[in-house]
Amino acid sequence: MVISKEQIASSNDGQLKKHQSKFDVLRDQLEEKNIDVAYVIDTLRTFQIAIPSWALGTGGTRFGRFPNGGEPVNLEEKMYDIGLLHALNRSSGAISLHIPWDIPEDAAGIRQLADELNLRFDAVNSNTFQDQADQKYSYRYGSLCHTDKAVRDQAIAHNLEVAKYGEELGTNILSIWLSDGAIFPGQHNMRRALQRTEDSLSQIYKGLSEEFEMLIEYKPFEPAFYATVIPDWGTSFLLANKLGKKANTLVDLGHHLPNTNIEQIISTLLAENKLGGFHFNDSKYADDDLTTGSMHPYELFLIFYELVEGLQNQNRSLQDLSWMIDASHNIKDPLEDLLQSVEAIQLALAQALTVDDKKLSDAQQNNDPTIAQEVLQDAFRTDLRPLLAEARLQDDAALDPIAAYRALNVRGALIDERGEDSVATGL
Amino acid sequence: MVISKEQIASSNDGQLKKHQSKFDVLRDQLEEKNIDVAYVIDTLRTFQIAIPSWALGTGGTRFGRFPNGGEPVNLEEKMYDIGLLHALNRSSGAISLHIPWDIPEDAAGIRQLADELNLRFDAVNSNTFQDQADQKYSYRYGSLCHTDKAVRDQAIAHNLEVAKYGEELGTNILSIWLSDGAIFPGQHNMRRALQRTEDSLSQIYKGLSEEFEMLIEYKPFEPAFYATVIPDWGTSFLLANKLGKKANTLVDLGHHLPNTNIEQIISTLLAENKLGGFHFNDSKYADDDLTTGSMHPYELFLIFYELVEGLQNQNRSLQDLSWMIDASHNIKDPLEDLLQSVEAIQLALAQALTVDDKKLSDAQQNNDPTIAQEVLQDAFRTDLRPLLAEARLQDDAALDPIAAYRALNVRGALIDERGEDSVATGL
Amino acid sequence: MVISKEQIASSNDGQLKKHQSKFDVLRDQLEEKNIDVAYVIDTLRTFQIAIPSWALGTGGTRFGRFPNGGEPVNLEEKMYDIGLLHALNRSSGAISLHIPWDIPEDAAGIRQLADELNLRFDAVNSNTFQDQADQKYSYRYGSLCHTDKAVRDQAIAHNLEVAKYGEELGTNILSIWLSDGAIFPGQHNMRRALQRTEDSLSQIYKGLSEEFEMLIEYKPFEPAFYATVIPDWGTSFLLANKLGKKANTLVDLGHHLPNTNIEQIISTLLAENKLGGFHFNDSKYADDDLTTGSMHPYELFLIFYELVEGLQNQNRSLQDLSWMIDASHNIKDPLEDLLQSVEAIQLALAQALTVDDKKLSDAQQNNDPTIAQEVLQDAFRTDLRPLLAEARLQDDAALDPIAAYRALNVRGALIDERGEDSVATGL
Amino acid sequence: MVISKEQIASSNDGQLKKHQSKFDVLRDQLEEKNIDVAYVIDTLRTFQIAIPSWALGTGGTRFGRFPNGGEPVNLEEKMYDIGLLHALNRSSGAISLHIPWDIPEDAAGIRQLADELNLRFDAVNSNTFQDQADQKYSYRYGSLCHTDKAVRDQAIAHNLEVAKYGEELGTNILSIWLSDGAIFPGQHNMRRALQRTEDSLSQIYKGLSEEFEMLIEYKPFEPAFYATVIPDWGTSFLLANKLGKKANTLVDLGHHLPNTNIEQIISTLLAENKLGGFHFNDSKYADDDLTTGSMHPYELFLIFYELVEGLQNQNRSLQDLSWMIDASHNIKDPLEDLLQSVEAIQLALAQALTVDDKKLSDAQQNNDPTIAQEVLQDAFRTDLRPLLAEARLQDDAALDPIAAYRALNVRGALIDERGEDSVATGL
Repeated sequence: MVISKEQIASSNDGQLKKHQSKFDVLRDQLEEKNIDVAYVIDTLRTFQIAIPSWALGTGGTRFGRFPNGGEPVNLEEKMYDIGLLHALNRSSGAISLHIPWDIPEDAAGIRQLADELNLRFDAVNSNTFQDQADQKYSYRYGSLCHTDKAVRDQAIAHNLEVAKYGEELGTNILSIWLSDGAIFPGQHNMRRALQRTEDSLSQIYKGLSEEFEMLIEYKPFEPAFYATVIPDWGTSFLLANKLGKKANTLVDLGHHLPNTNIEQIISTLLAENKLGGFHFNDSKYADDDLTTGSMHPYELFLIFYELVEGLQNQNRSLQDLSWMIDASHNIKDPLEDLLQSVEAIQLALAQALTVDDKKLSDAQQNNDPTIAQEVLQDAFRTDLRPLLAEARLQDDAALDPIAAYRALNVRGALIDERGEDSVATGL
Repeated sequence: MVISKEQIASSNDGQLKKHQSKFDVLRDQLEEKNIDVAYVIDTLRTFQIAIPSWALGTGGTRFGRFPNGGEPVNLEEKMYDIGLLHALNRSSGAISLHIPWDIPEDAAGIRQLADELNLRFDAVNSNTFQDQADQKYSYRYGSLCHTDKAVRDQAIAHNLEVAKYGEELGTNILSIWLSDGAIFPGQHNMRRALQRTEDSLSQIYKGLSEEFEMLIEYKPFEPAFYATVIPDWGTSFLLANKLGKKANTLVDLGHHLPNTNIEQIISTLLAENKLGGFHFNDSKYADDDLTTGSMHPYELFLIFYELVEGLQNQNRSLQDLSWMIDASHNIKDPLEDLLQSVEAIQLALAQALTVDDKKLSDAQQNNDPTIAQEVLQDAFRTDLRPLLAEARLQDDAALDPIAAYRALNVRGALIDERGEDSVATGL
Repeated sequence: MVISKEQIASSNDGQLKKHQSKFDVLRDQLEEKNIDVAYVIDTLRTFQIAIPSWALGTGGTRFGRFPNGGEPVNLEEKMYDIGLLHALNRSSGAISLHIPWDIPEDAAGIRQLADELNLRFDAVNSNTFQDQADQKYSYRYGSLCHTDKAVRDQAIAHNLEVAKYGEELGTNILSIWLSDGAIFPGQHNMRRALQRTEDSLSQIYKGLSEEFEMLIEYKPFEPAFYATVIPDWGTSFLLANKLGKKANTLVDLGHHLPNTNIEQIISTLLAENKLGGFHFNDSKYADDDLTTGSMHPYELFLIFYELVEGLQNQNRSLQDLSWMIDASHNIKDPLEDLLQSVEAIQLALAQALTVDDKKLSDAQQNNDPTIAQEVLQDAFRTDLRPLLAEARLQDDAALDPIAAYRALNVRGALIDERGEDSVATGL
Repeated sequence: MVISKEQIASSNDGQLKKHQSKFDVLRDQLEEKNIDVAYVIDTLRTFQIAIPSWALGTGGTRFGRFPNGGEPVNLEEKMYDIGLLHALNRSSGAISLHIPWDIPEDAAGIRQLADELNLRFDAVNSNTFQDQADQKYSYRYGSLCHTDKAVRDQAIAHNLEVAKYGEELGTNILSIWLSDGAIFPGQHNMRRALQRTEDSLSQIYKGLSEEFEMLIEYKPFEPAFYATVIPDWGTSFLLANKLGKKANTLVDLGHHLPNTNIEQIISTLLAENKLGGFHFNDSKYADDDLTTGSMHPYELFLIFYELVEGLQNQNRSLQDLSWMIDASHNIKDPLEDLLQSVEAIQLALAQALTVDDKKLSDAQQNNDPTIAQEVLQDAFRTDLRPLLAEARLQDDAALDPIAAYRALNVRGALIDERGEDSVATGL
């Protein structure tokens, strides 16, 4: 299924007048604060968030899974799904693959389809947290950290193969998340496990072509419940520093201990030029993988403020980093969930872009936390949704993507096309 | 596979002398503190911990599962596995069934097998957190809390059916864990969801025969990531109070927010006569479902101290409560994991039974936290493992169950019997 | 120092036109959604948040305190400070006293001053977490839970004396927060400590005049670091139920374990008719006592939604509960901190009042979490600050209280009046 | 007050026979496992844990303080108190000073007293988290991170002065804990605050004499409740790496977010040769500063296992690191609390030293978590207290320090000497 510009335009028709009036009021309000509205809109339009191939099906927990129907069962169908999202919001123009689930048998054909759908390929992701049917050695006790060299070699080869698939599709970013770790105290020697992991990563790093970037994700627990080998930003940072300039840390919002100040980690990694990418989601308890912005929208704004300010400080652009949604859609329609996540991310970005930097910086210089709070909250409290709608309108996307999705009955059409029982691979 | 008393005896032979000498030293040491060693041993011998039918296979997380081979695939095989445990430690003489996975087609035959293996049936567990193939309505949006009466009625009927199966097997305890809850703010009206749940529970309660006890488990999150309907002991307690005398709270060690003082909850529930049962496991981060005692053995001791002291205070015995292990064996051999859990539980019980109550109570009366700590830690630091070994010896069980399990190559025999690819149902 | 209506009016002058235009746009927007704007404004105007007498000075941590100057040193000065806040926002028209810090020597004079400043007296708070100079027995090992009856009697008498002071000032609410608890395992028998506490509370309850309400606060830890006697809502609820109809639970936002779903607790307590009051603050880690709304504004909105919806369901009004700010102003000017807190509370209330109940309730009935989220976030994302400004304007308060406070140089005037070294009592 | 060897010997007299018999049994048991008992005892005897000067008085929380009487009020008295501890356990032969509380006016006299009491001076600690009476600039908004260079310079000078005092007393370790941080989002620019801190630390580092070591402590929160400048090991490690070889990370057990795997941090820091020292305490909720070993003794053992194994791997000795207790004695007698802490630390060390390394290492190589757990728990479950008693006995210290302390009525004597109202400086 493909949504045409005409369908979008006609879905926008009835809302145009109201949108224009809201946007005018907001623009005036922002310009009064000396905000360059055109620049903000341009930044929003340029900013694209990759959709991972595994996020298009119903997610699940270890307790069960409740599929929804109409899910994509191969790479092409997944791309069509992302194409639908992108047609609706023009902010999801990238796809992140997970190998071995998405091995592109026909790379040229896949690239052509991507062109048709206006998608590019973002980071490719390796998978050594599960055993595949045809796999020689099991990852039961780890992959890159395994005590057995043969297992490590298998995992290294897998990562290099994933990079090769990425290359064929025109991306040069390899994203590595390791579930490696001990479930019980004593299970492995933590120092040696880290050193073996470092050694394996180093072999992958050397095996990558020169322009390739390696992103190293961290996570404190699950599925390892005692000592994940790369549990925190400090360990990822340590490894990335040892590996070299093309190795960077990847931050997944859900991969932190309770109460962690994530925005501070962003700030430090950017200052050290070692932030490589971002996985978006939200959570209340652990790695809940909920819709981005559904739980802690203010924290998301604070994170984006650090991103915008930190990149600016280094004269870098948002495009230098990898942005991806990584959530699990247990009960929402996955496509609706993704539309809401993208909207929340764009909103946080818009808020960050409209912070009165001068006033904030003065308040900081004067040690005036009252005013600093007023400045940040003013940006957050201002209703910037018309700005996002305007950015979409200028890109021929839907003023209200969720409403358009429903009006076009996309899920119904997908179920008709693929059946009630069509279930996607993935988590 | 069945382990005979002769096999056990012969495995004990070489260790008997050393055991006797260790036990003698310990007995003297304890008697010097005026501890009634025979009573403690007797209590340990009487204390039985139920094994749930779903704990005999390799567990998994949402990220994958690494099965081990030789797993039981039907109720009879599961019972044989528990029979093996019980032969080794004589402390696992009960089984807890999960319906619909373990529907006893031939109740009489199952009871006879249980008799042969010296097992009794503990609480039966209903399951409304997954959809079964033949189920009319989905539990995607809840079961007992569902907005749709038809779904609630289906879940109520399921619970009553589970109780019926239990009755056929000679148990009169129904254990209810609900995954019902909202994953997102606003998803349901929390008050109404609780009231519907109360109403459903009340219908189940009324449908149970008079001698039946209902255990209500609580859990703060997973798989509901925003607002589980019964998230904490307070809510379970509130419901149990409304339902009546035969409804009690069930505490699962892993179902608490970070840093919760679980032993205090035990103390309060016992004081109010509303503690019905216990699910044992251990965890470092969330509901990690690790081997009991593998992470926080001192906390386990403190919990047992509250149990022993609180039951004593009400002239109740340990046998009045339901005791079960509820863990997930992701990488250990499930049977070894269970042997270690049972050993840790018995050890904590032994420690609790050997606390110098008089000295502790004096220290409390005198507000002397230094001595109170000395008393508790003395019980905990004393190595009581010979006491457990003695209790087992008196019951013709193995002095060292793990060693005997390995010496008898039980897993190898099970794999031979059932195959490498035999995978149990369960989580 | 007193701020006159003329001063306020003149500070509003320059902003009136802009306010009117913003408010008009917002009103139209809300009315389009069928929101009764006049009702919302009226509710905001009626809603008053008590200021505790101890919140007017610089707070501190165990590591130090950095006072600011111009702090009130007696009850009258504290009342004048609250009078300043109330003049600026007309939402702080109540004071909550802490005895023994604020014993009203001349009750009649104090009441007259309150009348002049348009203040009423909200809940009075007892203090048994510190020893006073003239005190016979120490609370080192607890107060209402103490093993020694003489200590308990002293604490009971103190609470009744506090109630008497309250009565003299026209309030009939006694708020009890107990720091009682064990710092170490074994320090006290948890069951007996709870029973002694229950017994003491029951004596206080019986000693209160009939129209008196008792609020029972809970807190998981600090200053007791192992087992606070009333650690959670469940224990407070249990006690309140035993005591009787006039005993209710008081929720302090900072008194929860990490990740607690506070709004669900609100929902349950309201359903059971046992929510008595609220202490507002915000926190990231523990009981941080930060400015309300400075960290988790979305959670504050969700809490208010439960409050509004739950009270409505019972045909009760917001005025039936006690509302108080309870924060510690370590580095902000206390009065500015309080102005920001009140504003954040009113904003969350306004958001809760403008939720599209019908649409939300339909989404819940249809199990449509996507739309439920859209509805809640729409209320939260809409910029309602002009509504709050309008409510203040109608009450002759400042359109922008913080700006007016600064423009009037209130702190400077207070320092002139009271000196640089004037330090308030309190935490 | 001084405790003589004769007093100790006579207090041991009655217990000698029983001790000998217990020790003999234990020694045989350990030797059977091929443990070099003499080496373990020697290691225990050599291992000394510094007592900080501020730990000798009653601690407090922000809610109050309940002093005990007989507390030391100057440096000499504090040293006498530590002398008492050391006489009792011969494991507390070091003192750690806090400047400005303990400025040694007469360094030569102080050193002589230290010699008499068999004490050496461990790390000196600076203090920029409070304002001192005579201080020019306030640390209200930070010290080494402050926006104002004058404040930073003052804090730098203070640190160098502290080092100078240390040098006079024969220590060359400067320990820096910064409370610097933001309490509210936006209060400071986190990147710039970190860079200013790095710059300040670098100036201190350069100002130290060559043999001086700098320890950099980290803490996630309190008293900064939003973003402490050095919140985690990663940030401390990053700074220590930038500063140079003589800068190392200091780990305080209480300074971690909930559920942090501290032993893994130890493992990584040791592997990177950047662990400099350790502050011992225990906690259940936050930085509770409880008696070491009172809450999580198994975790303490796991930490010591990493320490022992990690130092061995680098051919380093325990003496290369700084070991200090850092707790707050809110209700226990501070000296008893310290005796219990030292005992718990020594016990964990003994347990770590008696792990069957070969068997553990084999289990790790074979990916056998069941046996790995058995090995660790065997070391932990074995009652090693007679080993500690023997080590003390060989050093003319008390077999049971707490009992001897009470029998000698030390606190009573101190109160007689110093008075009921004598209150120490410190937290």
